[in-house]
Amino acid sequence: MIPYKQMTAEELLTEKNRLDEAYQEFKGQGLKLDMSRGKPSPEQLDLSMGMLDVLTSSDVLKCEDGLDARNYGLLDGIPEAKELYAEILGVRTDEVIIGGNSSLNMMYDTITRAMMFGFYDSPRPWKDERKVKCLCPAPGYDRHFAISELFGIEMINIPMSPQGPDMDLVEKLAAEDESIKFIWCVPMYSNPQGITYSDETVRRFARMKTAAPDFKIIWDNAYCVHHLTQTPDQLLSLMDECKKIGTESRVFIFASMSKISFPGAGIAAMAATKENLSFLKKQMSIQTIGFDKIKQLRHVKFFHNAQGVYEHMQKHRKVLEPKFQMVLSVLEREIKPLEIAEWHAPNGGYFISLDTMDGCAKRVVALCREAGVVMTEAGATYPYGKDPHDSNIRIAPTYPSVSELEQAMELFCLCIRLASLEKLLLG
Amino acid sequence: MIPYKQMTAEELLTEKNRLDEAYQEFKGQGLKLDMSRGKPSPEQLDLSMGMLDVLTSSDVLKCEDGLDARNYGLLDGIPEAKELYAEILGVRTDEVIIGGNSSLNMMYDTITRAMMFGFYDSPRPWKDERKVKCLCPAPGYDRHFAISELFGIEMINIPMSPQGPDMDLVEKLAAEDESIKFIWCVPMYSNPQGITYSDETVRRFARMKTAAPDFKIIWDNAYCVHHLTQTPDQLLSLMDECKKIGTESRVFIFASMSKISFPGAGIAAMAATKENLSFLKKQMSIQTIGFDKIKQLRHVKFFHNAQGVYEHMQKHRKVLEPKFQMVLSVLEREIKPLEIAEWHAPNGGYFISLDTMDGCAKRVVALCREAGVVMTEAGATYPYGKDPHDSNIRIAPTYPSVSELEQAMELFCLCIRLASLEKLLLG
Repeated sequence: MIPYKQMTAEELLTEKNRLDEAYQEFKGQGLKLDMSRGKPSPEQLDLSMGMLDVLTSSDVLKCEDGLDARNYGLLDGIPEAKELYAEILGVRTDEVIIGGNSSLNMMYDTITRAMMFGFYDSPRPWKDERKVKCLCPAPGYDRHFAISELFGIEMINIPMSPQGPDMDLVEKLAAEDESIKFIWCVPMYSNPQGITYSDETVRRFARMKTAAPDFKIIWDNAYCVHHLTQTPDQLLSLMDECKKIGTESRVFIFASMSKISFPGAGIAAMAATKENLSFLKKQMSIQTIGFDKIKQLRHVKFFHNAQGVYEHMQKHRKVLEPKFQMVLSVLEREIKPLEIAEWHAPNGGYFISLDTMDGCAKRVVALCREAGVVMTEAGATYPYGKDPHDSNIRIAPTYPSVSELEQAMELFCLCIRLASLEKLLLG
Repeated sequence: MIPYKQMTAEELLTEKNRLDEAYQEFKGQGLKLDMSRGKPSPEQLDLSMGMLDVLTSSDVLKCEDGLDARNYGLLDGIPEAKELYAEILGVRTDEVIIGGNSSLNMMYDTITRAMMFGFYDSPRPWKDERKVKCLCPAPGYDRHFAISELFGIEMINIPMSPQGPDMDLVEKLAAEDESIKFIWCVPMYSNPQGITYSDETVRRFARMKTAAPDFKIIWDNAYCVHHLTQTPDQLLSLMDECKKIGTESRVFIFASMSKISFPGAGIAAMAATKENLSFLKKQMSIQTIGFDKIKQLRHVKFFHNAQGVYEHMQKHRKVLEPKFQMVLSVLEREIKPLEIAEWHAPNGGYFISLDTMDGCAKRVVALCREAGVVMTEAGATYPYGKDPHDSNIRIAPTYPSVSELEQAMELFCLCIRLASLEKLLLG
């Protein structure tokens, strides 16, 4: 195998004809695989089934502080759940709110409240600003971008490097434009690249000047305990760094148990300063009397503490690591020598993201779909669904079995090769 | 006992001195009782403990349609939960969304979305209207009013009669003022009076002309199955009545299991036309991937169907009926002959509401608190916390035991008498 770019036109054509045939064969197999969303596999869900047994009708459902978890009360969560999440997120217990089942919903609510009422340090509700913009490290999480788009918040792309977002650009834009109100971040094992922000990146987030007095960092720490290798990444605490210089009011941290216990049946959490939370709680107390405390108690009884969560995540790792290795080894074998795509081998998270040659991603995803393998829509990892280079594809290896994954990856690599050949031949 | 208004000043004074002494004795007892919120008692919560046993680690958590309830998916709820609630609410399955744990949160979200985006039949988002107003049958539910107030929506009081809201006034205002966008209703066993809207009231809601093209009826059917006597009220189906004349786009029905299974750990539901729901779901799909389907399944496995819910509510009735009877019998004995207050004996719901003589409610509640019994704040049942007559008090008899309730009611009646005597003596 030699790099495609070193091949003559004739060689490229021969290669293409050969692969076209292989592709037609794949189509004949009638594959039906979905690698589009970051869903845990049934085997992973089985890991948490014991949670269904930890509370029974013969248990007393009292919280640590004596409150009956079965009745109304406690807007911000039961004390033991707040303690558990405080430890995981590296914040104080009084900086945590335990919410419903979805951190996405908590982020949506946070932006909604900002639009309607602003934050405690906002000059006015964001809906009354002439313009609201946000910074979007990209490729990023499509559901973040969808929230911004729904509220008409203008999104600005920030390129990603292996250290995190391009901080030169983040600092420059945030300092000069007061309509830039926040930034979406997945700081650990980022979606989709699996990049963890470097210590220097975190420190620059803490230090940076912002023209907006109410600038917020939406720190979606979705994969904070989702390690996949023996050499896990380390993320510096943004809250601690900000506290050192008094910028902690910009920090809003989110996380959930959806990929720890059960998607949609886990518990979600957010963390921010007491000042931020006390302002929010006034509005939250109008929105709801409180979230599901029995489910909170069930999680605490099952995991006991943060250490219990870390140990549980090792079981997930056992299921997931071979899948990620399969994806990476097929890419290594089939694509690397051809020099037609690049990727990062992540130490955790839920995705592997691959960059094709410019202008090939849509074509690769279309070829895959035609042969029965659904990938995340090309472009979805960028604001407005527009990948400026049409090169990024998100691979979600968690749901299929290892053998399904092998099949799907064989096809995927074939499609990358075909799309690249088309590009090189047609220019 | 003769009516106070027939007493001479001297007789009133003698009575007051006698009761002052009794009041001081009560204060000496160091009572500590809370009749302020509609909380189920521990005995009621025990009724649903079996729900903790219906799903265990050895169960397969598949929905009716084969979907794994443990994983992501199904924005609007599992089919069997939708069927259950469709039957309870008298609507079609495709007119139901099963939400999180709180119908209050679903109502809040509905108003928030209306503010940000409007409904599908709105000329523009409500935030872009010059003015938004709502109609508030009062006395009513304080948390409804709090939502309106938070969003700066102007509230207009609508007096209540034993047939429901004053429909002459509702019809007149809704027809002439296009800034009136919605009305808050608790149509069955209303909070706080326990009144069920008459058939004619429901029909007038269906029929009435509205100046706003996107006028909505927030039909908070919180107590739809919460019967307390052998002669339960019947509520005509608003959806059916509206469909007869094509006004069904105004109907938004809400309910929850919080006072059926566990407060905060139940499931909530809303119902509206398919057109309304499909518009909402577009926004909901940005807000969340879905709600807790394991909890939905747990509820269906425990109740089986609507009939199972009705039977379960009979168990609640067994606990609650003696408490309501206690409240009513003490009022009957201690207050009725004196002609200083009025109330309605409800066939269901969670409250009894009492109207003192004008200008006495705050004083009664203050006297109670001073002697150790916390009642709902006087005025709370009116928009902006302002009872124009200072006469309405909400009694929540569900949480205390029957014997505690007897003590609390003795004190409460004493305080009504004292406040009335003060009023009559000082004018």
